[in-house]
Amino acid sequence: MTVSQNEFSLIERFFFNTGKSPFPVVLSQGDDAAVVDVPVGKQLVMSVDTLISGVHFPELTSASDIAHKSLAVNLSDLAAMGATPAWFLLSITLPKFDEVWLSEFSASLKKTSNQYQIELIGGDTCRGPLSISIQVSGLVDQNNYVNRKGAQLGDLILVTGELGNAALGLAYLQQRVILPATLIEPCLEALNRPSPRLELTGFLGSYASAAIDLSDGLVGDLRHILDQSQKGATIRLDSLPVNDFIRSQQEYNYALTGGDDFELCFTIPTQHKDVIDEWNDKNPQCKLTHIGEITDRNYELVGNHKTENLNNWQGYQHFE
Amino acid sequence: MTVSQNEFSLIERFFFNTGKSPFPVVLSQGDDAAVVDVPVGKQLVMSVDTLISGVHFPELTSASDIAHKSLAVNLSDLAAMGATPAWFLLSITLPKFDEVWLSEFSASLKKTSNQYQIELIGGDTCRGPLSISIQVSGLVDQNNYVNRKGAQLGDLILVTGELGNAALGLAYLQQRVILPATLIEPCLEALNRPSPRLELTGFLGSYASAAIDLSDGLVGDLRHILDQSQKGATIRLDSLPVNDFIRSQQEYNYALTGGDDFELCFTIPTQHKDVIDEWNDKNPQCKLTHIGEITDRNYELVGNHKTENLNNWQGYQHFE
Repeated sequence: MTVSQNEFSLIERFFFNTGKSPFPVVLSQGDDAAVVDVPVGKQLVMSVDTLISGVHFPELTSASDIAHKSLAVNLSDLAAMGATPAWFLLSITLPKFDEVWLSEFSASLKKTSNQYQIELIGGDTCRGPLSISIQVSGLVDQNNYVNRKGAQLGDLILVTGELGNAALGLAYLQQRVILPATLIEPCLEALNRPSPRLELTGFLGSYASAAIDLSDGLVGDLRHILDQSQKGATIRLDSLPVNDFIRSQQEYNYALTGGDDFELCFTIPTQHKDVIDEWNDKNPQCKLTHIGEITDRNYELVGNHKTENLNNWQGYQHFE
Repeated sequence: MTVSQNEFSLIERFFFNTGKSPFPVVLSQGDDAAVVDVPVGKQLVMSVDTLISGVHFPELTSASDIAHKSLAVNLSDLAAMGATPAWFLLSITLPKFDEVWLSEFSASLKKTSNQYQIELIGGDTCRGPLSISIQVSGLVDQNNYVNRKGAQLGDLILVTGELGNAALGLAYLQQRVILPATLIEPCLEALNRPSPRLELTGFLGSYASAAIDLSDGLVGDLRHILDQSQKGATIRLDSLPVNDFIRSQQEYNYALTGGDDFELCFTIPTQHKDVIDEWNDKNPQCKLTHIGEITDRNYELVGNHKTENLNNWQGYQHFE
């Protein structure tokens, strides 16, 4: 769709000069479509996610956090595929032209796109209820992507970072929980400014048999790996990387079914066990935790006093 | 973003088995992202358009027409680049789970994607005010895309089809105009079921110096070509391809500033003039009309009794 003069000016003012891609852009914004070169030997990895005000972020979320999160959740999909970010398209729907809001949004989008070296090459703007739709493209070496269906019996199940912080942050905002003062900031940060785990791209390409990003909660998301790999799993409650509040209050639901963590969950063959400690020594900001193993069929949570069957647990339901 | 079990079932039920791409799909729906192969020697052309209920289509538009139009307006962008469709991603936001609506939407999406051989490889579903965001990818031979900035002095300006029908259809629905009975159906068809002019892909690649698709009205859209090519243009009112109602009532505004035609406007060097008649003889369903020429600087409309300056005309404004 072409754009009106005003829309074009808007895009030009607020959305030019974002992060640069390490991969060739032939024709960028300002035409009917963008044109890029996919280097020989690479495959193209594509994903889209739409974030809607009041659904995917609380209505009072700042423009800066919305911009970061919209791009980060898409980058997280590329991370889960073991892909390197290349380009993105932005479709933004705004209730009104708000210069202050747009300035803040675009400054944050530029910062995050610079950080992850992904380049905005096109998009459109519409008027309507606030929502942001971003489509990301990344690249992998030929057939070196990581999907959900390669988990094998005995593989170790790993997750990055801490689980449950984003869901705790949301519960805090909605006054459903009282948090210790020291946890408020990290939990809100986890909710509003998730870190796509792109530092793991090479690691996943080398070692992972399957991977997924955690957007809807560990139990439901890991189930996608199990379904597609036709396997089961055992998760150990004691092994889950959670903060002291969750551990001491036994509020494991935040980690098991809480959404929006955007950490990665992946499996590696057991012979690669040693690489976990090696990684953790070098990458304290993106710690890996071994939380369980791939089994033949049952999907189970081993707790302190009992083993729970996870087959009937439900993650967050978009259409209930 | 991963999807819940329910969302996955929804996608599986309604959005699998769409049209097939002539280009290789390595990994389709059901993972964090899709993986495709871009053949060596091809460049990737990408565009995104979001359609919002009440903005881009009247609220009473059928699910079938919404599906067709959402894909068609994106395919129209590929057509304007001289690209061949390959794959698309769909992000659909629905106020509620409505099985009848979804069945109708998906049947129409399948039909249109089959017709244009474009394959749905991923997407997401959200709950919220009805909107459809589609991202299309197409391919062109290396550096054989058509952009907006190549128009040269003396080039002929051509458009496809008839202009103004979609805007007339909208005016009819909004009871702003009374149409002759024979025009009602074609004007509503133009509004709700535009035809992306992909049959011109090879022609544009061979002859066009610049191209754009007409989404916001001829005057504003052609201006983008003129701005980027740093040229002027003369359009002749008499030459515009319009229906009898517009001609007899002198209601040229529908054709000049009415949106949503999704015809193509493009320029060709004057030495290729003969190919117009050749094309029209063979393609009566996609007639080309020569409406004017590229000039050195002024942007003018030559009418019966006067010449009007078009520099200050405004197309449809998304943010007024």
